[in-house]
Parts: sequence; structure tokens; C-alpha cells
Amino acid sequence: MTKMCKVEAIIKPLKLHQVKDALEEAGFPSLTVTDVKGRGQQKGIVQQWRGKKYCVDLLPKTKVEVAVPEEDVEKIIQVIQSTAYTGEIGDGKIFVIPIETVVRIRTGERNGDAL
Amino acid sequence: MTKMCKVEAIIKPLKLHQVKDALEEAGFPSLTVTDVKGRGQQKGIVQQWRGKKYCVDLLPKTKVEVAVPEEDVEKIIQVIQSTAYTGEIGDGKIFVIPIETVVRIRTGERNGDAL
Amino acid sequence: MTKMCKVEAIIKPLKLHQVKDALEEAGFPSLTVTDVKGRGQQKGIVQQWRGKKYCVDLLPKTKVEVAVPEEDVEKIIQVIQSTAYTGEIGDGKIFVIPIETVVRIRTGERNGDAL
Ligand SMILES: Nc1ncnc2c1ncn2[C@@H]1O[C@H](COP(=O)(O)OP(=O)(O)OP(=O)(O)O)[C@@H](O)[C@H]1O
Ligand SMILES: Nc1ncnc2c1ncn2[C@@H]1O[C@H](COP(=O)(O)OP(=O)(O)OP(=O)(O)O)[C@@H](O)[C@H]1O
Ligand SMILES: Nc1ncnc2c1ncn2[C@@H]1O[C@H](COP(=O)(O)OP(=O)(O)OP(=O)(O)O)[C@@H](O)[C@H]1O
Ligand SMILES: [Mg+2]
Ligand SMILES: [Mg+2]
Ligand SMILES: [Mg+2]
Repeated sequence: MTKMCKVEAIIKPLKLHQVKDALEEAGFPSLTVTDVKGRGQQKGIVQQWRGKKYCVDLLPKTKVEVAVPEEDVEKIIQVIQSTAYTGEIGDGKIFVIPIETVVRIRTGERNGDAL
Repeated sequence: MTKMCKVEAIIKPLKLHQVKDALEEAGFPSLTVTDVKGRGQQKGIVQQWRGKKYCVDLLPKTKVEVAVPEEDVEKIIQVIQSTAYTGEIGDGKIFVIPIETVVRIRTGERNGDAL
Repeated sequence: MTKMCKVEAIIKPLKLHQVKDALEEAGFPSLTVTDVKGRGQQKGIVQQWRGKKYCVDLLPKTKVEVAVPEEDVEKIIQVIQSTAYTGEIGDGKIFVIPIETVVRIRTGERNGDAL
């Protein structure tokens, strides 16, 4: 049986378009996108506005989820990493999570056939 | 120890009401719902509007998450599949993900007792 | 190799601020936040408005995700549980999910070094 994984990337919202296109070009068109907010190791960013200080600690980010057979995980990581990269802090994180079963609702296909 | 899983379904938004009611009727009222966008194997859909072509490639979808003991996973899949089904493309996908620990915050109960 | 986990908590939206601050104080500033809706074991709440009955069965909740080495999971649970607690129903649930790989996009660091 094929092992399967969900590759979950938290990226800069402005990078979504590029990541999406690169995944499709690499043969992985299917994905789910969620608007999220977050912060990483730099914690809050203190900003000044009209003389007052504000701690903007949750920045808008975009979660991209791609379910694939495990053998494609490194390829997906490489595509996301190279297109989401700017070199500045906050470029994002990728998490790989195991999936035990996949079902395509329309056909009832499972696992490898459903991906 | 009971093994536990998260059943994560991406369905058509108009089907949420029916899926929710069917899960409750089957004895599974608890769930978490998220607005997401996504695309599957059909990639982008090209649409015309005022003579221009637009690639509408991320359609609104609804993510439904249900955490249950592993022995209930097939039942949940069957309930979601039969109620989210229309027979047309885009009906959605179900992913089953392992859960190691569950905690009910109010009582401190864990795992089977917390579900 | 360090085992890693995602601690996923569904809490009351008004508790986000306190949970976030407590996690940071405990040494875990990094997190992802998503607006969700949900219901637990109490199912729908029937409310009256202008003489009509409405079943308000999906209440606004906040999902907080924190990826950490497995050895920190109990600490995170304890911090979230103690700050998200009010003692009333709907305080929320915590789910712990395994992570196989973590990548920091900016540096290419992996796993323990990326957390
Ligand atoms: N440990 C974590 N758990 C959950 N979400 C995280 C974690 N680390 C990062 N994230 C999510 O990823 C987003 C981007 O993180 P970010 O790229 O700033 O990570 P970082 O570790 O601070 O790396 P960098 O030093 O390059 O900024 C955060 O806003 C948050 O949503
Ligand atoms: N491999 C995947 N990874 C992540 N999300 C997916 C994946 N496949 C589908 N999805 C999500 O599920 C939604 C519905 O997918 P869809 O039902 O179109 O799948 P499909 O494989 O194209 O099947 P069908 O041929 O019946 O349309 C997508 O919009 C996307 O959000
Ligand atoms: N089994 C579950 N699967 C998915 N999401 C859940 C589950 N149980 C709870 N949730 C999510 O957590 C939120 C809060 O749940 P809640 O605290 O009401 O759980 P509960 O089991 O009913 O406990 P309590 O009796 O303390 O209310 C729900 O609105 C839902 O989003
Ligand atoms: Mg950062
Ligand atoms: Mg499709
Ligand atoms: Mg409840």
C-alpha cells in the first residue's frame, strides 16, 4: 500500500500565485488554501502609529495543503521552498503530516487512485 | 488504548448543512468547519466575462473535521460520502489523519473519554 | 531523530490573546491561527428571535496550531488548557497530531533546527 502525506505549507500571501503555478507545472494541481494568521520565532513586531506603539504579532499568512503519495513529498517540498523563498524572515514553514486514507467522494476511489 | 483519527473532508459549501445533519443523526454531532478554497485534478476552469478570459482556479470549498475513535472512521466516511455526493466533479475529498492525544479543556478528560 | 507534533487547539475566540501570551511566556512564540466554526457534544443551541426559533449550531471558535518537538507537547497542553479554561461548556478541545518533517523555508533547516 502507498503511504500518503499531507504537505502543509504556511507561506506569504503574495507568494500563493507563484507556488500554485509551480505546483501545477510540476504535475500537482490539487491543493487546498486557507487564510490564516501567524507568527514565528521573531515574535511580535512593535510598530509605531500616530505616536502610539502597537504590537502586531499575528501577520496574515496563507496555508497551502497538498496531499500526495509519500514518494512525491520531497518534490513538493522542493517546489514550494524554491517558489515561496524571498530570503527575508517570515518566508514560512512546511509541515509533513501522515495520511492514513484518502477517498474521492464522486467515485469512491481510495488512496493512490484518489490522489 | 483507543486509536483516534481526524476525518477531514473538503466538500461543496452547499452540502455542509446536509452533511452536518447526517453526522449528528449518526451519533457524531461534534465537528469543526473552516472556509477554504481549492482545486482538484481538473485544475483551473477558464471563464469568460465581458469578453475577457479569467482562470478561476480556486473554488470556494468547506473543510469539515471530525475527530473520532478509529473504529468509527468507516462509518463517518460513509455518512460524509453519501451526503456530500452529487455525482459531478468537485464533490470533494476525504483525508484520514492519525491523532495521538485528545484533551477536553473543561474537564481535563483525555482520548476516548474526551471524544 | 526528534519526533515532532502539531498541537491543534480549538478555543473560545476571546481566549486567544491570553493563550498566545502564555505560550510566548513559556518559550513557544510560534503559532498559526485560523477562524473556524464548530460544535461539540451539546449539539445545536436553540435560540428565539422575534418569535421564531433558530438552531445556532455552529459557534465561532479559534484554531491555534503549534508545532513542537514531542518532548514539549505536555507543556504546551498544560499552558493552553490552563489559559483557555473558563469552566463552562464549549471551552474547547486539544488534538495532538504527528509531524514527519518540518522545513524552515528561508534557511532550508529541517526538523528540530526548524522549530
Ligand atoms: N512552530 C510553529 N508552529 C505553528 N506555526 C508556525 C510555527 N512556526 C512558524 N509557523 C507559521 O509559519 C508562519 C511563518 O513562520 P516564519 O517563516 O516566520 O518562521 P520562523 O521560524 O520565524 O522563520 P524565519 O526566521 O525565517 O522567520 C508563521 O506566521 C506561523 O503562521
Ligand atoms: N490532493 C489534494 N490535496 C489537497 N487538497 C485536495 C486534493 N485533492 C482535492 N483537494 C481539495 O478537495 C477539493 C475538491 O476536490 P475534487 O472533488 O475536485 O477532487 P478531484 O480529485 O478533482 O475529484 P473529481 O474528479 O471528482 O473532481 C479541492 O477543491 C481541494 O480543495
Ligand atoms: N470530536 C470533535 N471533532 C472535531 N472538532 C471538535 C470535536 N469536539 C469538539 N470540537 C471542536 O471544538 C469546539 C469546542 O468543543 P467543546 O469544548 O464544546 O467540546 P465538548 O466535547 O462539547 O466539551 P464541553 O462539554 O466542555 O463543551 C467545537 O465547537 C468544535 O469546533
Ligand atoms: Mg519568522
Ligand atoms: Mg475535481
Ligand atoms: Mg461543548
